[in-house]
Amino acid sequence: MNEQTVTIGRLAIWIAMSDEYEEAEIFEKAKSNQYRVCKGRVGSMDGEKIFAAVETAAKRNGIISERQYHEEHALYHATLEAFQGACRGQPLLKGVLRSGGFTFSVVRGPRRSGDLSDGEWVAVALFGTMGAPIKGFEHEVIGLGINNLSS
Amino acid sequence: MNEQTVTIGRLAIWIAMSDEYEEAEIFEKAKSNQYRVCKGRVGSMDGEKIFAAVETAAKRNGIISERQYHEEHALYHATLEAFQGACRGQPLLKGVLRSGGFTFSVVRGPRRSGDLSDGEWVAVALFGTMGAPIKGFEHEVIGLGINNLSS
Amino acid sequence: MNEQTVTIGRLAIWIAMSDEYEEAEIFEKAKSNQYRVCKGRVGSMDGEKIFAAVETAAKRNGIISERQYHEEHALYHATLEAFQGACRGQPLLKGVLRSGGFTFSVVRGPRRSGDLSDGEWVAVALFGTMGAPIKGFEHEVIGLGINNLSS
Amino acid sequence: MNEQTVTIGRLAIWIAMSDEYEEAEIFEKAKSNQYRVCKGRVGSMDGEKIFAAVETAAKRNGIISERQYHEEHALYHATLEAFQGACRGQPLLKGVLRSGGFTFSVVRGPRRSGDLSDGEWVAVALFGTMGAPIKGFEHEVIGLGINNLSS
Amino acid sequence: MNEQTVTIGRLAIWIAMSDEYEEAEIFEKAKSNQYRVCKGRVGSMDGEKIFAAVETAAKRNGIISERQYHEEHALYHATLEAFQGACRGQPLLKGVLRSGGFTFSVVRGPRRSGDLSDGEWVAVALFGTMGAPIKGFEHEVIGLGINNLSS
Amino acid sequence: MNEQTVTIGRLAIWIAMSDEYEEAEIFEKAKSNQYRVCKGRVGSMDGEKIFAAVETAAKRNGIISERQYHEEHALYHATLEAFQGACRGQPLLKGVLRSGGFTFSVVRGPRRSGDLSDGEWVAVALFGTMGAPIKGFEHEVIGLGINNLSS
Repeated sequence: MNEQTVTIGRLAIWIAMSDEYEEAEIFEKAKSNQYRVCKGRVGSMDGEKIFAAVETAAKRNGIISERQYHEEHALYHATLEAFQGACRGQPLLKGVLRSGGFTFSVVRGPRRSGDLSDGEWVAVALFGTMGAPIKGFEHEVIGLGINNLSS
Repeated sequence: MNEQTVTIGRLAIWIAMSDEYEEAEIFEKAKSNQYRVCKGRVGSMDGEKIFAAVETAAKRNGIISERQYHEEHALYHATLEAFQGACRGQPLLKGVLRSGGFTFSVVRGPRRSGDLSDGEWVAVALFGTMGAPIKGFEHEVIGLGINNLSS
Repeated sequence: MNEQTVTIGRLAIWIAMSDEYEEAEIFEKAKSNQYRVCKGRVGSMDGEKIFAAVETAAKRNGIISERQYHEEHALYHATLEAFQGACRGQPLLKGVLRSGGFTFSVVRGPRRSGDLSDGEWVAVALFGTMGAPIKGFEHEVIGLGINNLSS
Repeated sequence: MNEQTVTIGRLAIWIAMSDEYEEAEIFEKAKSNQYRVCKGRVGSMDGEKIFAAVETAAKRNGIISERQYHEEHALYHATLEAFQGACRGQPLLKGVLRSGGFTFSVVRGPRRSGDLSDGEWVAVALFGTMGAPIKGFEHEVIGLGINNLSS
Repeated sequence: MNEQTVTIGRLAIWIAMSDEYEEAEIFEKAKSNQYRVCKGRVGSMDGEKIFAAVETAAKRNGIISERQYHEEHALYHATLEAFQGACRGQPLLKGVLRSGGFTFSVVRGPRRSGDLSDGEWVAVALFGTMGAPIKGFEHEVIGLGINNLSS
Repeated sequence: MNEQTVTIGRLAIWIAMSDEYEEAEIFEKAKSNQYRVCKGRVGSMDGEKIFAAVETAAKRNGIISERQYHEEHALYHATLEAFQGACRGQPLLKGVLRSGGFTFSVVRGPRRSGDLSDGEWVAVALFGTMGAPIKGFEHEVIGLGINNLSS
């Protein structure tokens, strides 16, 4: 992943899939490309907990403003799209007897590094596993949502 | 991505997101971990062309058998889940005036490298862009589907 | 509908449901409240034609910029949500043998007249009928989508 | 809104969007056009409470019979369609961390005032806001469902 | 299937799954229980052809009135629900590269034989196969939709 | 239903719709055609209880292995498809104020009796009623899911 290929979606996926050894390098690259990023973990059978964890992390890390509904709305829809992607169809967990465990990322910046002509965007990636509430009975899933944020 | 973390989903995503320089290394690692893999490209406003491209590539590369509906069925649902993930909600392109351009991968093997206790699985990853049928008016999307294949 | 209740959603619905006699008054009120608005008609069994009509009208009337994907993306999702609302479930027309005929509106401005603290939003309303492709075999439907636009 | 344009959908939307000053006039017009109508309010993160509020109001106001499943079924599907319209996609509230606050209406009568050739229909409209469970972090939504009732 | 268990749903499924030898007996039983029924076949990758075939058969056999939108609307939604049931999720065929081949039935009468207290209902059942457009690459599917018709 | 027409889907539907007098005959025929089958009942407003009942019954009756995620995954998706079929659209119960009461079946074997060329499949059928949580306010529904299991 070299300078010219830093895009908001790749960056979000890269962070969500990274292990602890890769993190420092990725965060450094993000910063040098003018992206604001954060990473967190959440596991639940309740969809709302996934949304709350992403939103809380994004606010605590100053990625979106806590006081602007405008920004919260943009993040919400990016999260919803990432969640729908990870669920592959119906955005349901407990109601269809399954559980999700994710590492997530939130990224704010241009769609493509250095392209400031087209506003700021927000990306949310969820990477982890989904499956039955039985240890090990699960497989990998991924979801990515990207939304226009501010101009 | 070291030996102990080779899982079918990561591998599928890694291939779909790789550039031409990374491909040889990844394909080598896949082979040494007993995975069968292939990679292709497809862009369209017709959903069915995405499915056909994935299926044709999987058959031509001997990843699934051309004569077994059992295998075709497993691949179909992995592709459908990947497509739903990339579409984030409704698996529609032309009907909601959008187009998709993807690099895709198909991977066959154990859920986790070396774990032969639980049969073979098939993974399909789609990585690319989706957006308006106007050049550059698109953002990144990803989808991953994993399905049980043979025991 | 008096000054203090002018909100972007009400305004979009009001325009889409207005007849020719009410139009001038509504457009005047919108303008005096700093909203940019347009109105049009479209009927089809092809979903993409609904999207294209809304987008074309919004660009021709200067409601969104033709050159900014950022703005086109915001409008697209507002249109998709309005279309999903009018379809009440699956955003499909021809494939489930039905046709839609709409008067639509696009509105750009604050969520609530005079509140400039929280950026500009875009609203799309579709009001009309949906039904079988047989004259008169149809009933009324409505859809409204609202999205964050610029900050 | 003059005599010749009284249709069941317009009437339902008009009631759901009306303020207390307009109510008396609308109810009078509905009555003189042989429509039975009611109006209520409900806010919740639980979808089932929306359905229950609409159904209870419709029964208490004699719009549908309490003892006929036939009528309850017709109302249920009109409510489901209105709810899907307001949710624009997935009919979920709490599970995707959002809350809805609605003024709703139920209307029973002909599709078009005075047209008795084609049985009675039932319309449900929901108008209000949906958003994060944070005060003011919400935007307007609308939904309308119309269903055949009795012949 | 004896007299006391004749219900509209069972009857619709029974007809759709019957072979030519069973048909005469079932149609006789339906008639003696005051049900109006018909049966047909349709195969396509276009969803609209399924809807058209069901509607045409229902009208030709006098199960619903050709001139009443009220009745057409009731049948349409029963057909949509049957189609959604057979598709198990997204009501799409060609767009997700699959084809459906069905025997269908339309049944009109009480929910339960002899119970005239609660109006007439309409049921549509689809039974057949869905799968890839490759001979034999398909498995069985079923769908049933029931809707209130006239009081 | 004679020997040459024993297919996995018909068998699953037949069991789910059978009364106690027909059961012995059907189970005998299933066994003589090398199918493993079970039957159970479940009613709830919580979707997860439907999934849990089917899975528990399938494991207790030795239809799928308790220790293989591979088999549990195949059964899960067959159950999800049956549930989606019975729900005709959104796989939701309580959240849209409705309840489901089902007799279910699980069947394991070839798609078509005697055809061993194409692996084992699993079918889940749900037959029963869905409706308002008011006694008798419900109508019949059916769902069938079929999935590839082992090769």
